[in-house]
Amino acid sequence: MSLRIVAGTANPSLAAAVAVALSCEPAACEVERFPDGELRPVVGDVRGDDVYVIEPTGPAVSDHVVELLLVLDACRRAGADRITAVVPYFGYARQDRRNRSGEAVGARVMVDALGAAGARRLVVVDPHTAALEAMCSVPAEMLTAVPVLARGLESAMPGRAVVVAPDLGAVKLAEHYAPLLRCPVAVVRKRRVSGEAVRAEELVGEVEDRAPVVVDDMISTGATIEAAVRVLRAHAAAAEVVVVATHGLLVGSAPERLAAVTSRLLVTDSLSRADRPGLEVEVRSIAPLLADAIGRLHRDEDLGDLRARS
Amino acid sequence: MSLRIVAGTANPSLAAAVAVALSCEPAACEVERFPDGELRPVVGDVRGDDVYVIEPTGPAVSDHVVELLLVLDACRRAGADRITAVVPYFGYARQDRRNRSGEAVGARVMVDALGAAGARRLVVVDPHTAALEAMCSVPAEMLTAVPVLARGLESAMPGRAVVVAPDLGAVKLAEHYAPLLRCPVAVVRKRRVSGEAVRAEELVGEVEDRAPVVVDDMISTGATIEAAVRVLRAHAAAAEVVVVATHGLLVGSAPERLAAVTSRLLVTDSLSRADRPGLEVEVRSIAPLLADAIGRLHRDEDLGDLRARS
Amino acid sequence: MSLRIVAGTANPSLAAAVAVALSCEPAACEVERFPDGELRPVVGDVRGDDVYVIEPTGPAVSDHVVELLLVLDACRRAGADRITAVVPYFGYARQDRRNRSGEAVGARVMVDALGAAGARRLVVVDPHTAALEAMCSVPAEMLTAVPVLARGLESAMPGRAVVVAPDLGAVKLAEHYAPLLRCPVAVVRKRRVSGEAVRAEELVGEVEDRAPVVVDDMISTGATIEAAVRVLRAHAAAAEVVVVATHGLLVGSAPERLAAVTSRLLVTDSLSRADRPGLEVEVRSIAPLLADAIGRLHRDEDLGDLRARS
Amino acid sequence: MSLRIVAGTANPSLAAAVAVALSCEPAACEVERFPDGELRPVVGDVRGDDVYVIEPTGPAVSDHVVELLLVLDACRRAGADRITAVVPYFGYARQDRRNRSGEAVGARVMVDALGAAGARRLVVVDPHTAALEAMCSVPAEMLTAVPVLARGLESAMPGRAVVVAPDLGAVKLAEHYAPLLRCPVAVVRKRRVSGEAVRAEELVGEVEDRAPVVVDDMISTGATIEAAVRVLRAHAAAAEVVVVATHGLLVGSAPERLAAVTSRLLVTDSLSRADRPGLEVEVRSIAPLLADAIGRLHRDEDLGDLRARS
Amino acid sequence: MSLRIVAGTANPSLAAAVAVALSCEPAACEVERFPDGELRPVVGDVRGDDVYVIEPTGPAVSDHVVELLLVLDACRRAGADRITAVVPYFGYARQDRRNRSGEAVGARVMVDALGAAGARRLVVVDPHTAALEAMCSVPAEMLTAVPVLARGLESAMPGRAVVVAPDLGAVKLAEHYAPLLRCPVAVVRKRRVSGEAVRAEELVGEVEDRAPVVVDDMISTGATIEAAVRVLRAHAAAAEVVVVATHGLLVGSAPERLAAVTSRLLVTDSLSRADRPGLEVEVRSIAPLLADAIGRLHRDEDLGDLRARS
Amino acid sequence: MSLRIVAGTANPSLAAAVAVALSCEPAACEVERFPDGELRPVVGDVRGDDVYVIEPTGPAVSDHVVELLLVLDACRRAGADRITAVVPYFGYARQDRRNRSGEAVGARVMVDALGAAGARRLVVVDPHTAALEAMCSVPAEMLTAVPVLARGLESAMPGRAVVVAPDLGAVKLAEHYAPLLRCPVAVVRKRRVSGEAVRAEELVGEVEDRAPVVVDDMISTGATIEAAVRVLRAHAAAAEVVVVATHGLLVGSAPERLAAVTSRLLVTDSLSRADRPGLEVEVRSIAPLLADAIGRLHRDEDLGDLRARS
Repeated sequence: MSLRIVAGTANPSLAAAVAVALSCEPAACEVERFPDGELRPVVGDVRGDDVYVIEPTGPAVSDHVVELLLVLDACRRAGADRITAVVPYFGYARQDRRNRSGEAVGARVMVDALGAAGARRLVVVDPHTAALEAMCSVPAEMLTAVPVLARGLESAMPGRAVVVAPDLGAVKLAEHYAPLLRCPVAVVRKRRVSGEAVRAEELVGEVEDRAPVVVDDMISTGATIEAAVRVLRAHAAAAEVVVVATHGLLVGSAPERLAAVTSRLLVTDSLSRADRPGLEVEVRSIAPLLADAIGRLHRDEDLGDLRARS
Repeated sequence: MSLRIVAGTANPSLAAAVAVALSCEPAACEVERFPDGELRPVVGDVRGDDVYVIEPTGPAVSDHVVELLLVLDACRRAGADRITAVVPYFGYARQDRRNRSGEAVGARVMVDALGAAGARRLVVVDPHTAALEAMCSVPAEMLTAVPVLARGLESAMPGRAVVVAPDLGAVKLAEHYAPLLRCPVAVVRKRRVSGEAVRAEELVGEVEDRAPVVVDDMISTGATIEAAVRVLRAHAAAAEVVVVATHGLLVGSAPERLAAVTSRLLVTDSLSRADRPGLEVEVRSIAPLLADAIGRLHRDEDLGDLRARS
Repeated sequence: MSLRIVAGTANPSLAAAVAVALSCEPAACEVERFPDGELRPVVGDVRGDDVYVIEPTGPAVSDHVVELLLVLDACRRAGADRITAVVPYFGYARQDRRNRSGEAVGARVMVDALGAAGARRLVVVDPHTAALEAMCSVPAEMLTAVPVLARGLESAMPGRAVVVAPDLGAVKLAEHYAPLLRCPVAVVRKRRVSGEAVRAEELVGEVEDRAPVVVDDMISTGATIEAAVRVLRAHAAAAEVVVVATHGLLVGSAPERLAAVTSRLLVTDSLSRADRPGLEVEVRSIAPLLADAIGRLHRDEDLGDLRARS
Repeated sequence: MSLRIVAGTANPSLAAAVAVALSCEPAACEVERFPDGELRPVVGDVRGDDVYVIEPTGPAVSDHVVELLLVLDACRRAGADRITAVVPYFGYARQDRRNRSGEAVGARVMVDALGAAGARRLVVVDPHTAALEAMCSVPAEMLTAVPVLARGLESAMPGRAVVVAPDLGAVKLAEHYAPLLRCPVAVVRKRRVSGEAVRAEELVGEVEDRAPVVVDDMISTGATIEAAVRVLRAHAAAAEVVVVATHGLLVGSAPERLAAVTSRLLVTDSLSRADRPGLEVEVRSIAPLLADAIGRLHRDEDLGDLRARS
Repeated sequence: MSLRIVAGTANPSLAAAVAVALSCEPAACEVERFPDGELRPVVGDVRGDDVYVIEPTGPAVSDHVVELLLVLDACRRAGADRITAVVPYFGYARQDRRNRSGEAVGARVMVDALGAAGARRLVVVDPHTAALEAMCSVPAEMLTAVPVLARGLESAMPGRAVVVAPDLGAVKLAEHYAPLLRCPVAVVRKRRVSGEAVRAEELVGEVEDRAPVVVDDMISTGATIEAAVRVLRAHAAAAEVVVVATHGLLVGSAPERLAAVTSRLLVTDSLSRADRPGLEVEVRSIAPLLADAIGRLHRDEDLGDLRARS
Repeated sequence: MSLRIVAGTANPSLAAAVAVALSCEPAACEVERFPDGELRPVVGDVRGDDVYVIEPTGPAVSDHVVELLLVLDACRRAGADRITAVVPYFGYARQDRRNRSGEAVGARVMVDALGAAGARRLVVVDPHTAALEAMCSVPAEMLTAVPVLARGLESAMPGRAVVVAPDLGAVKLAEHYAPLLRCPVAVVRKRRVSGEAVRAEELVGEVEDRAPVVVDDMISTGATIEAAVRVLRAHAAAAEVVVVATHGLLVGSAPERLAAVTSRLLVTDSLSRADRPGLEVEVRSIAPLLADAIGRLHRDEDLGDLRARS
């Protein structure tokens, strides 16, 4: 059973880098797009192989989801022996419960569709919800890019820094960064003012004169970061704000927003690089992380500390 | 168990017309679109209902497929008693087999995903492949819009007409039209020239001085129609060419192509109306057909001749 | 399809109260226990019924889990039309992910086993993890006892109180209580001290001279509550400490621990009352909540605000 | 994982020839038949093996279907590692859709039953419907015997021949033969006469003075062939008619019918040879084709042009 | 949801009698048999109905099994609401375990195939193995014809009779008959002679001068009965031997064998009556039993003592 | 794929002995027990391994069942390649059918739960019901400890012995022992006295002055054995009574009961040894049997006569 990388169109350069790191020839995978928007993938010979389909499902998320389903099916029908969907950024992870009557649980819809199309294992990096694992009917491995990004930060860390979680959901992530960066943690949270429906941001922890390193799993429109920085400034944090996130979607007015409030922005290459006018972004590659994880999975070795702590 | 129509965003006016025809209040269904392209549907109260989700999966096909999966899941979690996916135009039906090694069977991927998301029955109109029914693990009803379109044609049928199938795949459809329009059938087919790989179009049947009514299940880029008309002209068919299809995708340069070769173009409203500069299109509604079928299914009555003959 | 309550042995008085509230005769359900510990349930006539099996899976958790599986199977084989597992306290909900290599995802194992045994819907009250819903392959309704408990508190609320979440996991719950009790929220959290592995409790929010109302979804050994109260005292909170939780497991040395630090303890009857020497416990019944929810589900009505907000 | 051939009773000589071609000892497989018609297979040791069960489901079709299900189950329980059902002639393939209300989709019933009994892959030769692949929940490989039969024809091909599809369903097959035989294609089709329910056969293509090679995937009663030859004669085709089909069921009055209209009849050994009084049949073996395909599947190699084009 | 009887071809007169007893018009069900042995059922309108397909799977067992699968699928696709397979005689029930390596578990293969084809419930009469219920993934009801047959015997019971189980497998059945017939029980068993492989029949219980009533669930070739009577004679039982069985397959030389050893033979009409030259058989109908059971199932009533005791 | 033994807590010494016999290092498997009774297993590195989880489900049966489910899930998520549940004593096997309306089929509930948790194969020793195999959706191997126990008996067999089945369910087992011990067989059975509901024990076979060897698959409370010995004494059997059973649960007052009626008691170590005051028990280990079977399964060899005859 040979190791075989299959690259969808969502992030071919990441997939190529993974293949290089594994010294393995990727299987051919052409995805034709018809004028009406239907996709037709054709994968190369994967019969009997241990196949890893690499396809993050970031924007254009629907296209990437559908393409991933088709590629998985193509691999199955072509006789692949074991198929692992490697989805570094897993779209729809935020829809992990119904907040209101009438909603879907989008994350579960996605994992079920992947399973129905032939995925026998899932690999994800820093998913928005740790519950993703329990939703999967097939084994799922949750990797983390925190050490990769922490190493990227180290070279130029300010003297007195503080890791900031911009909301409660990011606290665990902040606590993973803190010992690596040797910083304390602060948390911005929305506070409910007693007796009324009014909410205000609240800061927990010391940030005065400290250089904030705001951490999150993903940055979409940048609104959460922008709000957090406003609070940090109100609490006399240092002006230089570093922002770190595993997944840089940076959609909508994110470039402008972030350009206004950050002095340094660090993300991974989990998503394909798009034009971000006026925004300087440092990118650390997760290709070595994915290559290491895929290599271990292929050789049936333990993933050890490549896995996210939760 | 009340009848409930749920309209996705793919063709809300068709769904509304169906609801009106059934004198039934459609369930609320809002689909929010996030800046990163993720969709979040919220459906109204459907608990215990007999739900029909109406969503053709034409362009933008990936978005409509993903939205349909999410809406089905939302209905299931909201306690719908029976969920029928009504997909008047079923995208990916052309991918009903692997033509080459390494391809997917896209049509099967779609029906499996619908089933995994909660569809317990499928209703389709004039699918590109009759095999769709056998692919479904849940009961599937294949309706036909041929009588609707034939009635639309009748008012202005030329004196001596001929129904033309523009390729072999359309012959059965042509044979359904023929008795309704009281015309003979002609067929255009690609002929393989013996001993060489060369192909040429060939015409079967009499078309000379007859007004061709070219029929197909769907028109995508219009290339097949254009080629067929070229052959018809070479065989001295009448200049006035009527083109009829259930599904008018009309993508790419279809408007220009069809404007050049047809004098009359008739399609149904299975797909939402988009801008088609320079192309006059007559549209016949399948809302009565769908309303009739849904009403019978809800009341547990036989579908009779609403079903496509095959 | 008649409504039918089936009571397991885990909490028969709660089930009886639910049946009374619904004016419905519960189905007979005898569970014989053999000398070797095997259980044999015999349920009464439920053929064609809309059955709700009420069985919290608190201590003795393994016995209650196995009994629930057997009762579900008995109902299925007896011809029940629709089977809903009502598990007010859902054991193993804390095992909602693998924290280390080699662990199981116990919560998923439980929902899968329930599904395999015949449950077609799940009803849970204030589960430890909101992810439970997304794990279920069948629709799951998450109810909340917060309003019930808040009403219980109101009669004797101190003048200046503060709702306290004893750890980060309880913050959302605290935020549900706060507006009902018209109090602010404070949070106790374990803080990671920079650069070292040492942790210390930290208090967020104002508690000085305020009477703390510590809230949690469940109290097992009471250790978390005890630690939180220690922190509250260190921050000069009022001496009177009210503790509120949906599920009072109160195992091990919980009675002693809680007797030492609380002046008032309020839980629901989600779990059967056991001997708790030296501990006064106020119990509010969730029977009306369950009866309301079951009645609505049976009549196909929306659950509205009976559902937990998340 | 050793390659292992298991031969059912439907065509043991074909299975034996495949085993010889693969230089592989077939596993023992005895099928006892009880006086009441029940079958009891006993397979030899296949634990851990890569098993290929060879069983065409031609007449007596019900017995062969049931026997195949039992043999698959026996292999599964005996610990076979991978089980491939090799069904050279796949019965019930004609029932690939409902032509009328109330029909079954027999082909889907068969593939589902095979899957339920343990088949993890399917291999078929020239199935009547290309949709078979999309019906299968497990990977399916559609092989073609066209090159085998074409080679069989070559030795004695008439000077001016024409490949004839006896109905529209056989056109694709005819187009596969044409370049191999270096002939043009002609098609016999049933024509619907305008305005009335009358049908008449129609011939497309030039056959005058050409020797017809009528091709089909299967010959059951021979009625289709007989009708086609009548049309060919009416169009002055040469008197010598060669008939070629992958599957020679030749049931009912087929021997008489074909003896009357053909001068040469060529089929494969996909079905066991039965008595065909008064009919000379040339048989080409598909054992090399099956052996080649099975060998490649076992060694995880691409099937290349062994697969049917569609 | 209307009650609807669908009769396969295996025992149409039994199905007709059931329908009459239920005052219910059976749905049309034509089963066409093609010259190659394939079957094509067409069922009438069953949309939304509570369907009971009546089809014993006795000889020709393979044909009846395949027909049943097809009819179930046809009902499912036609929109039946609930489908119950009523299989009065369940073929392959003797294959309920592997007696040797390499065997199949035929009974399980059959129940799985029925489930895959759409059966949602199973009704069987006196199956050869009580384990059938536990094999089924869907609810299964095991009825008994013992009271029916016992009533048939009563009119002409000899003065001093004894119920005889012809082997150990029939002991439970004999114990059901005994109190109804007010007789003691005797058992014939194969005895293993110590230390050697020799076996001899052994009789347990008093039979001298008593009239034996030999009971069994089914009579296939009659060999077991013949051997038992030989033992009875050796023990001076009365010469008049009554034989009673639920299912009279009577294949092979059963008519001759039984004619030689019995003075009276009583079976039910679970299987269609075939020619039995030289053998007088009294037949008691299970139509009232099936009608009663189906009626109760349809009205969601308990089956009570229609069920077999085990 | 390495062989890996995983030992649950139900019988760690048996598992250790199996590992020693296989010269294989068992995988670590710690099972933490929380104060509320929830279990949390952590298994060592089993990625890519051929895993055998050894866990009999005797008392405390619910705990062992739940633990087994969790360990199976842990192995699956940890990437085990093939997971076999080795359940030497299979609890709930007696619940293999519904004896009355309203019962569950506990044995099926258990096998379904094991399958849902990840078991891909089952190994059991002398199960109470042979039907267990047919209930399993995955392959199941039924081993027998009869030869092991027969060898244990041989050394001290009395001169004139008789193998006694204490009820009808044990007859097949007795017939397996008889040739190994070179003894005849006698059977104790409950006899139904004609016309009344009274039952009396009955003895079949010669026991006078013979030393009885009473055999059964399991001994729970010892009541069946006690009753059988009473009958043996009434028939003048020798006073020395040897009792042999594969599974010695010996719960309730079994030690006292058996001490009173047996002179020698022989069981295997399928269940963990517990205190049995006043009862001498000889224990024969099935570790060699399990090691042999596991070794053959791992190496894909036939199980031969390790399998139970049925």
